[in-house]
Amino acid sequence: MTSDRFLTLLTDFGDRDVYVGVMKGAIAQIEPQLNVIDLTHRIPPQNLLAARFALLNAYPYFPMNTVHVAVVDPGVGGSRRGIAIQLQNGYVVCPDNGLYSGILDFAIAAVELTNTQYWRVPNPSNTFHGRDIFAPVGAHLSTGIPLEKLGQRIDLESLVRLDLPVIEINQAQITGYIQYIDHFGNLITNIPGALVEGKSWQIIIKNIEINSGRTYSEVNQGKAVTLIGSHGWIEIAVNSGSAAKQFQLTWEDTVQLTIND
Amino acid sequence: MTSDRFLTLLTDFGDRDVYVGVMKGAIAQIEPQLNVIDLTHRIPPQNLLAARFALLNAYPYFPMNTVHVAVVDPGVGGSRRGIAIQLQNGYVVCPDNGLYSGILDFAIAAVELTNTQYWRVPNPSNTFHGRDIFAPVGAHLSTGIPLEKLGQRIDLESLVRLDLPVIEINQAQITGYIQYIDHFGNLITNIPGALVEGKSWQIIIKNIEINSGRTYSEVNQGKAVTLIGSHGWIEIAVNSGSAAKQFQLTWEDTVQLTIND
Amino acid sequence: MTSDRFLTLLTDFGDRDVYVGVMKGAIAQIEPQLNVIDLTHRIPPQNLLAARFALLNAYPYFPMNTVHVAVVDPGVGGSRRGIAIQLQNGYVVCPDNGLYSGILDFAIAAVELTNTQYWRVPNPSNTFHGRDIFAPVGAHLSTGIPLEKLGQRIDLESLVRLDLPVIEINQAQITGYIQYIDHFGNLITNIPGALVEGKSWQIIIKNIEINSGRTYSEVNQGKAVTLIGSHGWIEIAVNSGSAAKQFQLTWEDTVQLTIND
Repeated sequence: MTSDRFLTLLTDFGDRDVYVGVMKGAIAQIEPQLNVIDLTHRIPPQNLLAARFALLNAYPYFPMNTVHVAVVDPGVGGSRRGIAIQLQNGYVVCPDNGLYSGILDFAIAAVELTNTQYWRVPNPSNTFHGRDIFAPVGAHLSTGIPLEKLGQRIDLESLVRLDLPVIEINQAQITGYIQYIDHFGNLITNIPGALVEGKSWQIIIKNIEINSGRTYSEVNQGKAVTLIGSHGWIEIAVNSGSAAKQFQLTWEDTVQLTIND
Repeated sequence: MTSDRFLTLLTDFGDRDVYVGVMKGAIAQIEPQLNVIDLTHRIPPQNLLAARFALLNAYPYFPMNTVHVAVVDPGVGGSRRGIAIQLQNGYVVCPDNGLYSGILDFAIAAVELTNTQYWRVPNPSNTFHGRDIFAPVGAHLSTGIPLEKLGQRIDLESLVRLDLPVIEINQAQITGYIQYIDHFGNLITNIPGALVEGKSWQIIIKNIEINSGRTYSEVNQGKAVTLIGSHGWIEIAVNSGSAAKQFQLTWEDTVQLTIND
Repeated sequence: MTSDRFLTLLTDFGDRDVYVGVMKGAIAQIEPQLNVIDLTHRIPPQNLLAARFALLNAYPYFPMNTVHVAVVDPGVGGSRRGIAIQLQNGYVVCPDNGLYSGILDFAIAAVELTNTQYWRVPNPSNTFHGRDIFAPVGAHLSTGIPLEKLGQRIDLESLVRLDLPVIEINQAQITGYIQYIDHFGNLITNIPGALVEGKSWQIIIKNIEINSGRTYSEVNQGKAVTLIGSHGWIEIAVNSGSAAKQFQLTWEDTVQLTIND
């Protein structure tokens, strides 16, 4: 019965140290039968945009009531709040720094984590709230502790937001931004694929015209293609190569797209 | 009862993005009580030989009926088939590109994954069949859905094969190939240890004679030794160092071995 | 009921190969319902000090009776013993090379792993005792097999120890050593935070004075701070940077601390 509850972990702790293992130990001490899934622990250090994109893309694929514990936390030990947000399809437990901005449209309610009863210890360390606050609170939430028990209700409007500039649409021209760069060096923009569905388009970067396609392998090795990625956004990829390296583009850079016809 | 069923994941997705986490979410939505084990997600991008070796070596060590979902898939979205193979001791769900070649001797039957009922969605993305087809099909197979329900039966002879040249044995001389390079830089050949069992041998690379031994530590630090690895193949290692770097050898390179006496 | 038992894995096997996956397969063949948690597999190759620190820091955060299987094993296949140690709060199964030294104060009893009945096979490989001995023994121990069945009782005094020099305290001056460098490049000393609790202090490295603080973010980006880390030791960190790179310090280097007042 208990074992159909899920908690995910998303951090920038890397995989060299025992920080993540220790969070799992702290969870196991509270609820041994919880299923814990790693989203990733290799968010580039303190890169909140990367954490935002990761959470945005993982959220739809998990069972109802999954608790996502997300700890990319440059302000740990400072004045930023610890929070839990109830969403239509689950929960996020994290620092109040905007990493949840991509899924805030699904938010129903939020609390500040002020009730120390659900922390690992009432006097947490200044540098590892993942172990001392966020993972334990996430474990308790997974066992069915109601959101409002975790602390004081806060206004959703009060949450820190983190967003790229809104895309601009000017007839057949769309200006967007790079919101994520993945392991393969694929450049993922914030232009929704829905805007070009069923059409062909180009992106011009540094005088190189990149044509739209459906798959990575329909261009020759080392050549670029732009397509609707599996996440639903327009991306730029290089077959068997890295678009990030080839075009020397980085996070938040601008991209110009032209729809054909 | 349900929790003694296992599914493994093998990909080249790396560990920086949420691709693997999302596959696990998709599995959890189908069968929350399945045990999911990561074989590795750091197969060098699109290196089918590495995936072949990984699967070949993991297969014998898992419980009966384990489902291995293996997604190293340069042809994703193109015309290559998605398949499931039933083996004596479990299943492989993967693209039809040969990554299963090391265990094809154990194959009993195969199907092409044509039944969209067991996919996550009937209209999958063009770039992420791991999430949309292979992981969901693997999860269904783990719950006991019979192989033949997953799609059309196909001939085992029709499967793409991926193999190194066969080793050549000329009296005491054996010519083999490097089939894998591991994390430590150990060079693993495709010469079976059984051929030299109980004997001593040498391998000569770039005029350096490497003598056979039993353990890494029986030569001095920085010195090379050739031994029968834990996987059963002849390998070349450097104590506290990397044989791949020291000898500048790579995948598929030729190796000459001489048996003593 | 069975699923509240935990086994952790700590190795230097990296995450590119299937070595770790194969250990999990070997465990699953013995006890499918065991919860397996990765502490880390990215201990720097053969760095016993790093393994010692990892185990020391993970141990307090796991449920009672957790079995820690730790395989950093430069001497594999040689004459070093395989051992299991019973601690107040769990077990360690590992080679007898000192990686458990940080928690040996909690030791109650130890055995040499001489009973091949609990190994995967009676004739293990010379190079992969993780798969053939340590993981299987750990799995059996988790199922409730008593320690003394695993082999011959040995004296705790006979175990190999691995320790940094003891810190020296000379009035307000403390001399300590770097016992660990983490993923962020934080330099973690072996000076217990308890010695400076409630006080302020400085560390001088290469003529740069580093003042004590409470959090990483209370100094400007690129600036250093020394604080009591979440593990309880004095550490040196650089906000949004790497103290290890900035100060060019490494494992076992000496650190001088001065307490104010």
